[in-house]
Amino acid sequence: MAKVKKQPRPKAETPKGFRDYFGHEVTERQEMLRQIAEVYSRYGFDALETSAVETVEALGKFLPDVDRPNEGVFGWEEEDSGWVALRYDMTAPLARVYAQFRNDLPTPYRRYAMGPVWRNEKPGPGRFRQFYQCDADTVGAPSVAADAEICAMLSDTLERVGIPRGDYIVRINNRKVLNGVMEVAGVLDPSDESKFEEERGIVLRAIDKLDRLGEDGVRALLGEGRKDDSGDFTKGAGLAAEQAVKIMRFVGAKEKISSAYADFMLRLEDARAANSSDDLEPEAQNLLHLVDDCDVGEPSWNDYAVSVLREIVETSEIGSEGVDELEEIANLLDAQGYGSDRIIIDPSVVRGLGYYTGPVYEAELTFEIFDEKGRKRQFGSVAGGGRYDDLVKRFTGQVVPATGVSIGVDRLLAALRAKGRIGQESARGPVVVTVMDKARMADYQLMVRELREAGIRAEVYLGNPKNFGNQLKYADKRNSPVAVIEGGDEAERGVIQIKDLILGAKLAEEATLEEWKDRPSQYEVPRGELVAKVREIMDLYS
Amino acid sequence: MAKVKKQPRPKAETPKGFRDYFGHEVTERQEMLRQIAEVYSRYGFDALETSAVETVEALGKFLPDVDRPNEGVFGWEEEDSGWVALRYDMTAPLARVYAQFRNDLPTPYRRYAMGPVWRNEKPGPGRFRQFYQCDADTVGAPSVAADAEICAMLSDTLERVGIPRGDYIVRINNRKVLNGVMEVAGVLDPSDESKFEEERGIVLRAIDKLDRLGEDGVRALLGEGRKDDSGDFTKGAGLAAEQAVKIMRFVGAKEKISSAYADFMLRLEDARAANSSDDLEPEAQNLLHLVDDCDVGEPSWNDYAVSVLREIVETSEIGSEGVDELEEIANLLDAQGYGSDRIIIDPSVVRGLGYYTGPVYEAELTFEIFDEKGRKRQFGSVAGGGRYDDLVKRFTGQVVPATGVSIGVDRLLAALRAKGRIGQESARGPVVVTVMDKARMADYQLMVRELREAGIRAEVYLGNPKNFGNQLKYADKRNSPVAVIEGGDEAERGVIQIKDLILGAKLAEEATLEEWKDRPSQYEVPRGELVAKVREIMDLYS
Repeated sequence: MAKVKKQPRPKAETPKGFRDYFGHEVTERQEMLRQIAEVYSRYGFDALETSAVETVEALGKFLPDVDRPNEGVFGWEEEDSGWVALRYDMTAPLARVYAQFRNDLPTPYRRYAMGPVWRNEKPGPGRFRQFYQCDADTVGAPSVAADAEICAMLSDTLERVGIPRGDYIVRINNRKVLNGVMEVAGVLDPSDESKFEEERGIVLRAIDKLDRLGEDGVRALLGEGRKDDSGDFTKGAGLAAEQAVKIMRFVGAKEKISSAYADFMLRLEDARAANSSDDLEPEAQNLLHLVDDCDVGEPSWNDYAVSVLREIVETSEIGSEGVDELEEIANLLDAQGYGSDRIIIDPSVVRGLGYYTGPVYEAELTFEIFDEKGRKRQFGSVAGGGRYDDLVKRFTGQVVPATGVSIGVDRLLAALRAKGRIGQESARGPVVVTVMDKARMADYQLMVRELREAGIRAEVYLGNPKNFGNQLKYADKRNSPVAVIEGGDEAERGVIQIKDLILGAKLAEEATLEEWKDRPSQYEVPRGELVAKVREIMDLYS
Repeated sequence: MAKVKKQPRPKAETPKGFRDYFGHEVTERQEMLRQIAEVYSRYGFDALETSAVETVEALGKFLPDVDRPNEGVFGWEEEDSGWVALRYDMTAPLARVYAQFRNDLPTPYRRYAMGPVWRNEKPGPGRFRQFYQCDADTVGAPSVAADAEICAMLSDTLERVGIPRGDYIVRINNRKVLNGVMEVAGVLDPSDESKFEEERGIVLRAIDKLDRLGEDGVRALLGEGRKDDSGDFTKGAGLAAEQAVKIMRFVGAKEKISSAYADFMLRLEDARAANSSDDLEPEAQNLLHLVDDCDVGEPSWNDYAVSVLREIVETSEIGSEGVDELEEIANLLDAQGYGSDRIIIDPSVVRGLGYYTGPVYEAELTFEIFDEKGRKRQFGSVAGGGRYDDLVKRFTGQVVPATGVSIGVDRLLAALRAKGRIGQESARGPVVVTVMDKARMADYQLMVRELREAGIRAEVYLGNPKNFGNQLKYADKRNSPVAVIEGGDEAERGVIQIKDLILGAKLAEEATLEEWKDRPSQYEVPRGELVAKVREIMDLYS
């Protein structure tokens, strides 16, 4: 047989922009997805797992005259299916599934989907071409009760995965309110929506940049435009001063709600403090009366928000409808006990452009973390969504209302890790039973069996047992809590040695640490006490 | 703005060979994967999740002079990574990861991986281009203790997911035994393995077909060849009669072990039955003596298998090594209590061609199911694997021993469904609270909240509530166990109506069924008893 010419060795590398996940990185995510699915399911949402591959036609992001779809997706041509691509989100496949199976699916259809999506984008630090999404959507429910439900579910979900109340806030706005503001500012004509489209785009982008540019920056973009620090000029919407005022009133709405609410809370506190005395000011007496009246209840943040927004949208029909919807959502949530400590109406939520047609919502983590440069910053958004009506229209021509949320699972995991709320237990390796005598492998196997049956992760060292030091190095690399040793001498005497590796590591790290000094890190116990002693040591650190 | 020419509507279809999974299809699989991961983790295996996309070079299935890789995989070309493809199994990515991270990973490296793989093959009934695999492998452990461990773990896993002992068997063989048989039959020359390669291929394929062709069919393929019923001729290995005899002795080995073992068990039973009497035959006395002797223990199936195989491999060195390894595996498993009711040595296990270099194993479900044509048949194989040594050699030049198993999760799910062991609970929908009065939506939301807080899946009907019949049809489509109704009259009286939909469905199906006749299917209870009554009804059917 002729010798085949030797091939160069292939490189062992992930493709650019992709990565692998090891051990607890995988199990922590799995556990989080399981917890989220539990909440979603409790709310009546059904699981859906679509294929990773869709026809490009169904994904619907590509121009028909482009030879090869490479804008943002990974696509290729198949003989029998034409151009196909990996899904880039969970919404496009939902649209395809709902259109395909609409006669068999219930309406409304509540579904959740979790899994990887793929984006053919330039990778960067922390930006990968494959990542997880975790979505819940209600299709075919026109009522804003569906939006309220998803906001409540989002709040429950965050608490379920370990974000305590107070460390997050769900913020709600309504596109219709924004449109109402556009109308009163004269950049939306309800009878011809194609007018002022460009201006509205600029206005929306400007509002979305409030955090970064401040009020002056936004005002500049509403007018002629803005020159940034580098000297680059961004063209503005060209609004007249009286138009810009209407928009700026909306931009300032959050501040107004916030200060009105804070003022109310202060006065309420004063009134309550003065409750015992009779010389209350009439205003404070009024306030107490209001609050104590069961039927009215305590005016909440959301009540203030509704009244401020109603003023801002003036006579705009679409704007008023938006405010009514927000009020209805707030009432539904209030009735279930979701107060402004969990879910608030917040006019600063914009959520991108186009697409959304009604309520929009966003969950933000409010605690601070340290970024890679050691600076404190707010963690920020971990989930968002809203109402959109064009879901299946592309396929069937029918307008089907839908609303849904997407949770950024990897960001949420990063937040929990940053706060030290996960990672301790899940990163711990198995108990390692070392091999002192190859011929007694069956005895060692029996030990790990006993440990496993007691619910303890355990394994026998299966490398070359000759060098005992290597076995302990292995246990170290595995992050093992305990090593078990039974040499010939121990076997004869019916005992085993149990090494506390967590303590061993601590001693190695901080040899002077007083509290550890007097504790032994190795114990000799009768063979029969294997499980009890191992558990005792592990319980010390859990 | 110029009007864009109207595009034809896209088709709402999955690409050919792909499918979607709904509701309990998804959750049952997730639950099974979770249970399997639990067992794997208990054994010290670590999770690994690689990217779905690999470079074609790393997958290593393609000739360098082929322009486009389309043999069996889905591949495409990327500007920055060259040709890439979706993974077609979990082993190729493991090889890449181990080569890439070998300095950071522990050795031995025990890892499990579960997720979809993609095959660009002709789809057929029940054959899809995307399906789940669930693998566990130990890399870098030369000892057959690693193989024994995986067989034990496989047995534990099957029981964990709901296959009771007796409904499955794990069967082990060793490629070295096969090679030993080849050697004594003169179709393997240990000093030059390239000789007789073609013949060995034919012999292996012939043995693998024993079930289908019977002994005569195999014998024909060992000789000149075989004509099948349609008249097609398959060329044989061309062995001489005395060569074929050696192979056939191996082919008959399983029968021989089986009858020797059955004979032993019968005689043992007789001896035990006669235990009280003193007039036992000497042979029976011997047998009892042997069994009662703690050090020797009861000769097991595996003991018989080892002695039969040792005879068959004669003086072949590689064959003897293989038998020794099987004996060691059997001893390790015996010591942990895995008897021949769970794991047996079975020389009929071949597991494909090439690739494997030592022990091979397979898990088979032994119960019968009815196929789509209503015929009884054995369910068959659900998992398999073995030892292979070329894992990372392609990348690093190093030979690294590895052994691992792959579980066919979808087949296992099908088996459990066929036996009715899953699907009842998981297919059940949520409790549906109907909407009689839109204005009281908040009250209905409060009801589902109470139910959810009690751990019961529940949802409010969010479609158009006008037609009450539609709401009940919806609950039916959702497979809901219970519907809750509160109209204005009920609200005034502080009561609710609770409909038992499971009973309702049974009554509709079998209206004459005596046992259901006298049970009401709708109850009026005080509003405060919502949770208690719903739970009472659901408990009736769980």
